[in-house]
Parts: sequence; structure tokens; C-alpha cells
Amino acid sequence: MKHTGTMTITVGWGDCAPSGAVYYPNYFRWFDTAMWNFFDAAEWPLRELEQAHGIVGLPLIETRANFKRPCRLHDALGIETRITGFQRKTLEMTHTLTNAGAVAVEATDVRFWGVRHADGSGRLTAAEIPADVIAFFGGA
Amino acid sequence: MKHTGTMTITVGWGDCAPSGAVYYPNYFRWFDTAMWNFFDAAEWPLRELEQAHGIVGLPLIETRANFKRPCRLHDALGIETRITGFQRKTLEMTHTLTNAGAVAVEATDVRFWGVRHADGSGRLTAAEIPADVIAFFGGA
Amino acid sequence: MKHTGTMTITVGWGDCAPSGAVYYPNYFRWFDTAMWNFFDAAEWPLRELEQAHGIVGLPLIETRANFKRPCRLHDALGIETRITGFQRKTLEMTHTLTNAGAVAVEATDVRFWGVRHADGSGRLTAAEIPADVIAFFGGA
Amino acid sequence: MKHTGTMTITVGWGDCAPSGAVYYPNYFRWFDTAMWNFFDAAEWPLRELEQAHGIVGLPLIETRANFKRPCRLHDALGIETRITGFQRKTLEMTHTLTNAGAVAVEATDVRFWGVRHADGSGRLTAAEIPADVIAFFGGA
Repeated sequence: MKHTGTMTITVGWGDCAPSGAVYYPNYFRWFDTAMWNFFDAAEWPLRELEQAHGIVGLPLIETRANFKRPCRLHDALGIETRITGFQRKTLEMTHTLTNAGAVAVEATDVRFWGVRHADGSGRLTAAEIPADVIAFFGGA
Repeated sequence: MKHTGTMTITVGWGDCAPSGAVYYPNYFRWFDTAMWNFFDAAEWPLRELEQAHGIVGLPLIETRANFKRPCRLHDALGIETRITGFQRKTLEMTHTLTNAGAVAVEATDVRFWGVRHADGSGRLTAAEIPADVIAFFGGA
Repeated sequence: MKHTGTMTITVGWGDCAPSGAVYYPNYFRWFDTAMWNFFDAAEWPLRELEQAHGIVGLPLIETRANFKRPCRLHDALGIETRITGFQRKTLEMTHTLTNAGAVAVEATDVRFWGVRHADGSGRLTAAEIPADVIAFFGGA
Repeated sequence: MKHTGTMTITVGWGDCAPSGAVYYPNYFRWFDTAMWNFFDAAEWPLRELEQAHGIVGLPLIETRANFKRPCRLHDALGIETRITGFQRKTLEMTHTLTNAGAVAVEATDVRFWGVRHADGSGRLTAAEIPADVIAFFGGA
């Protein structure tokens, strides 16, 4: 794939639970930020994608995360984010979070290409991802 | 004052920092919830106040909090919320958070009666709080 | 399985993103709370399990969540939590979050039975889940 | 005063409420981080202060914040943190948060020099701040 988003985090006091390790919902806050950063770094910010294609964000329909080792107060973390697959109406992003060089968390999100339904109700329906978007972000 | 909002909280794992005490920004999350609950309990929900009076929420302009004793994992807390003062365009709410019968945190918010500015810019300006609102919520 | 933990949530202002829907990391905060509540409701609180068996929490090694419909400000949600599987050293918990009677999010956590490693380093290692624990929580 | 801590933040999706403005408890998360960063930048990290002087953090006993203008998604914020006063057993820190060059939030924390009480109960008591600490951080 063409683009990789990168992000660094220093684990703060408020990110940790009483055990001293990161409270795990915070990993998802970071992955959500990493997703926005990914599109910014690709110079196709999510807001511009929305305007160009009439989508309403990239709604999350599935996430899977594997926690391989704990991260603790003051640890310096890195996140690498990639689009790791395109289906007709969905795409898959993978976030690899490392701590001192070792993978600590790996997460995969599935998001759909959401446009307003033609019935005017405001609800979203999945549409086909345009070929130029797939080409730009590095699909086959 | 006429109305008191009450709310109970059991301190959860994710509410606490590595010290085992509540991470203090979480108190403000609870006080914000207490504010919404206060208006619901008064049977004049914030959403109805907005529609009836053309306000856009009750924007916070000041908050002061005193932390008197720590709260820890599994502690059962209570919050009592009252309107403790009306000025012409602002009101003051006080949240008293107790832990095992003793006051642990006391916070006072100042919020303004915000309406859209006549210039059409979308920005908010403070307007006079209507007499019926002051009467309903127990002003002098 | 024998036990079901239940929990209700009213979606608050601070739980939602600018779209008006719940910011998804908050679901994981709620599922973590649901996990603690599950053991409390089973009258075998996590803290007592730790003391009785020498475990250090039930570290999360994997989570998978499917987001089926959005939840919005003031929605009244329910969560049902169950242990849906035991392996030799791990267990699987499933959280079913409903909104107005329909499943909105379904999440499955894999957690391991973590004890201090014999090498004295403080790190955790997975141990076999005792038969009485499996029996108590309803394993085959 | 001698030291100023500086920090920058880009407002993220999850930092904002449905209004599109920052959900205000998040400002306190950032001010707490700014406090840790301040001591790191002064090359006297909080952890070293604790070890050198037997204190247990710098417990917060009071905070006051004034919200002057809203901050919104993608705004680039700056925070400047200073110690703005020493009393015998407490110190005052001020955080000035700017958005596009204008002060958006100003907050002042009062924290005490907390050591373990001599009674062995584990509770904290306020002690006099050592003269070298006051001198180092720029007190008169």
C-alpha cells in the first residue's frame, strides 16, 4: 500500500489505570486519531474526501484488537497506520502500535463508504468506493 | 432554591489514575452530566429550554473546584446540584460531591444565557435571563 | 451460562462526537465497567477472585466489536454481559449492547488467567483456570 | 518566574462534543499533561522531585478556569504553563491556552507539597516547600 501514517504518543498519567498500565479504551482514542492523521498525511484529509464524494465520514463497522504487551506511564509509543484492504464498499485499516521497538497492540478497523440514503431519511447506506480513491490509497 | 438534582456514581477502574484516586478531569465529566440531569429532574430539560427561549445551551464561562479529599476505586459518590445564583445574563450552579457522607469536591460553574448574535455570524451573545425562568428555578 | 450481568446507560453529551453519535472508544469504557459489574453481580467480585486465586486482574488479550447501528445523545442503552467460553487458560466474555430493543454493538473479549511468573520479575504468565471457577461461572 | 512549559495540541474528533466545540473536561486533561510537561521541561521531572523530597505528587486542592472563547475540531492550540506563586505549603500554576493567538482558556491550579503523615496511616499532610525548590522554580 502506498501510504503509511505515523504518530507518536507519550503515555500520560490520565491514560493509565490503577495498575499503572494504559486503560485499554484509550488505545481506541489513539487509533481514531491515527485514522484522521493518516488521511491528512496522505494529503487527502477526511473532510475533503467527504466533500469530494458526498460521504459522511467513514463509519466504523468492526474493530479487532490484539493486546500483546502492556504500555505504562511515560512509555514512548509509535503507531503506524495503513489501509490493508479494499472491498467493494468497505476498507480495512490496520494500526500497529509499538513500545520500545516491540509490537504492543495491533488493531484492524473495517469502515464503510457511507452516503446518505436516497430516501431522504438521513440514514447512511454503503456505496461503492470510487476507483480513483482505491488507486490513490494504493489498492491493486 | 427550589430544585436539587441528585446523582450517584460508583468510581470505576477507568476513572482512576495510577495513584488509585480519581483522575480529576473525570469530576468535570460528572458535573457536566449532573447539570443535564438537574434540568431533566426539574422537568424543564435543557433541550426544551433551548427551544422555548432560543438559547444555544448554557455555555460555561467559569468553573472553580475545591478538592477536599480523594475518592478511590469502588467508592460510592453522591452529587447534589443546585442553582445558587442568578445575575442578569448569567447563572451559577454548585455541585457538591460527597464520599461516605463527607464533602469531597465542591464546584461552582458560571454559565451564560447564550443566544445567536443578531449579526447572523452564528456567534453567541449573552442575553437577559427571562423572569419566568428565574422564577421557575427558584430565584428570589 | 449461569450468570448474566446487566447494566443501563443514558448516553451523555460528553459521550458523543460532533456527529451526535457515541464516540466509539466510549463503548469500550462501558464494556470494561460491564466486566467489573458482571463479577460483582455474580457475587464473586474480581477483587475476591484475585485474592482467592493469586491472579492479577484478568488481562485483556483480544477484543472484537461489531457496530451495527449508531447510538445518540440521550438514548437509553442496555448491556448484557456473559462468559461465552472457557479455554484452558483464557475465557471469553460477550457484551451485547442494545438501543431501543435492537442490538447496536456486540463485543467479545478474550482475557487470560494471569498469575505472577515464578521468576520473580513481576511479569504475568497464563495459568490454568481452576475447575471450581469454571463450574461457578457456568462452564460445561 | 524562571520556567515556562509549552505544549501544542490539535483538537481531535473525540475531544469535541456534539456542538463541535471542545468538551470542557478535556481542557483539564490537557492541563494535567501540561503540568507533567512543565516539570520535565524544567529538567526536574515530578518523579525526581518525589524521590528527592519524599512527596507524593503535588495533590490538586483547587482549580479555577475561565473559558473565553470556544475551540473546535482541528484548531491548533498552544498551552503555556508557569508557576505563578508560592505559599508556604502550596504553589499555584497557571495554564494559558491560546487558539489562533487569542487566549481561549486560562486556568489556575493550587497544589500542595504532600508528604506521608507521621502517624503511618498513609494519608498525606502538607509540608513546607523547601527553599531550594522555590529558588529553582523561580520564586522570589
